[in-house]
Amino acid sequence: MKTASIIIIGNEILSGRTLDTNSNYLAKMLAERGISLQEVRVIPDVHGIIKGVVNNEASLKDYVFTSGGIGPTHDDITAEAIASSFDVPLLVRDDAVELLAMHYKNGKKDLNAARLRMARIPEGASLIENKVSGAPGFVIKNVYVMAGVPEVFEAMVQEIILDLGSVCPIISKTIKVFKRESEISELIWNYADRYKEISIGSYPFNNSETFGVEIVLRHTDQILLNKVFNEILTEFSEPKTN
Amino acid sequence: MKTASIIIIGNEILSGRTLDTNSNYLAKMLAERGISLQEVRVIPDVHGIIKGVVNNEASLKDYVFTSGGIGPTHDDITAEAIASSFDVPLLVRDDAVELLAMHYKNGKKDLNAARLRMARIPEGASLIENKVSGAPGFVIKNVYVMAGVPEVFEAMVQEIILDLGSVCPIISKTIKVFKRESEISELIWNYADRYKEISIGSYPFNNSETFGVEIVLRHTDQILLNKVFNEILTEFSEPKTN
Repeated sequence: MKTASIIIIGNEILSGRTLDTNSNYLAKMLAERGISLQEVRVIPDVHGIIKGVVNNEASLKDYVFTSGGIGPTHDDITAEAIASSFDVPLLVRDDAVELLAMHYKNGKKDLNAARLRMARIPEGASLIENKVSGAPGFVIKNVYVMAGVPEVFEAMVQEIILDLGSVCPIISKTIKVFKRESEISELIWNYADRYKEISIGSYPFNNSETFGVEIVLRHTDQILLNKVFNEILTEFSEPKTN
Repeated sequence: MKTASIIIIGNEILSGRTLDTNSNYLAKMLAERGISLQEVRVIPDVHGIIKGVVNNEASLKDYVFTSGGIGPTHDDITAEAIASSFDVPLLVRDDAVELLAMHYKNGKKDLNAARLRMARIPEGASLIENKVSGAPGFVIKNVYVMAGVPEVFEAMVQEIILDLGSVCPIISKTIKVFKRESEISELIWNYADRYKEISIGSYPFNNSETFGVEIVLRHTDQILLNKVFNEILTEFSEPKTN
C-alpha cells in the first residue's frame, strides 16, 4: 500500500485564524484511492522548517502533498524552501508565465514583480494547472506543491488525483449500534484482536434524539470484510421472539 | 515566549472521516494567551508512533497538548503510549474512578472493564476534570492529554488554559484593503522587511460581493504595533480632494 503525508504550511492555521479543511478534503480522496495517509503536519512559514519537514517526509513516504505559501506576498516562501530541499534553482518559467498571463485582462502586461513570483518553479518540476486563479502548483519528485486557498487547493487536487493510488481501494462498512460505547467496547476489542488485519474503529455519536456508536470496518478485501461484518452484525441482532 | 505543539491522535482524522476542529479551537486560545503554537501533527492510533512523537515534542516544546484516544475501546491507546513515553506504570487510580462513577446512574456498580480503562492514569500525572462525560484527562510533566470528542476536548481546555501562558498576550490589528493581493504585496513586503520583529500576514478574501486582502499585524508591544499599523493605514488612505 502506498503511503502519504500532508504538510499544511501557514502561520494563519497555527494562530487559529483559519480552520484547515484542505487536509480533510485530500484525506478523503486518498482513502478512496487506497493510499494510506500516515501523518498531517501543520507548520509555520519558516524556510528552515519547511525545508526540513519536506526533506524528511519525502524520504519516508511515497507521496507528500503540501498546501499553502505559493501566493504573491512576502510570506509565501514555499517554492523557495522546496527548491532548496531538492537543491535546485528556482527560476521564472515561460510555461508558468503563460498560465498566469491568461488569467489577467491585459495578459503579460499585468504581470508585476509580485505576480511573477508565482511563475517561479523549481528546476525539473512539472506544473499543476490551476483552473480557478491561474497561478500553477508543481510536482517535484514525489512532492506535490499546491495552494492554500481551499477552492484552488481542491481544483489542483482534482488535476492530480486520478494519476495516484493503487488498484485496490479500501472498502469501509459501517454498523450503527444504539448502545453506549463502553457497553460494547469489550466485544469490539475481541473482534479487533481476532482480525488484526482489518482496521476496526468505533465512533460514538450523541445528538438530541439518540446516541450510540458507529463501528467502521476497513480493508481492501471485500470477502474478508463481509465475513467479519456479518459476524459483528449477528452479535447485535436481537433474536426474533414471535 | 513559551512554545507549544498539538498532537491529534486518531485514524478517523487521517481517513478523512472526521474534520479536526480541536486544533483550531486550542490554537486560538493559545494565541490569546501569548503562547506560540509551532506545529500541529495528526498521527494514527499506533503505540510506537504516539510514543515517539510525544517524546520528541515534549523535549522540544514548553507545552504539548494531545487530543484523542482516551475512550473505552480497543483503539484508545493514548494513555498506554504516553505512560510508556515517560516510562511509568499505568494504573487504575481511585480519584479517577470516583470522577467516572459520579457520571453513571448506579455509580461504581456501572463500571465494567471497558469503562475502568478510562480511570487508568500514568503514575505521577494530575487529572484534568471532564464536566461533560466524567472520564478525566491528565497532565504528565509538560504533556496535557485530552479527549478527542470536541465538546469534551473544549471543556478540558477550559479547565487548564487559565494556568498557561505568558503575561504578554499577542495583540493583532487588521487592515481590510479592497485591492488584489498581487497589487499590494510589494508594499507589504517592504514593511515586513523594515519591521522584521512584527509578524505581518496577508490574507485574500473573495466573495460574491467584493474582494480584497486583510493585512494582519501581530506583536506583544502595542506601541510598536500601533506605529506600524498607522504607517500602513496611511499608505491606503485616499488623499482628501475637497
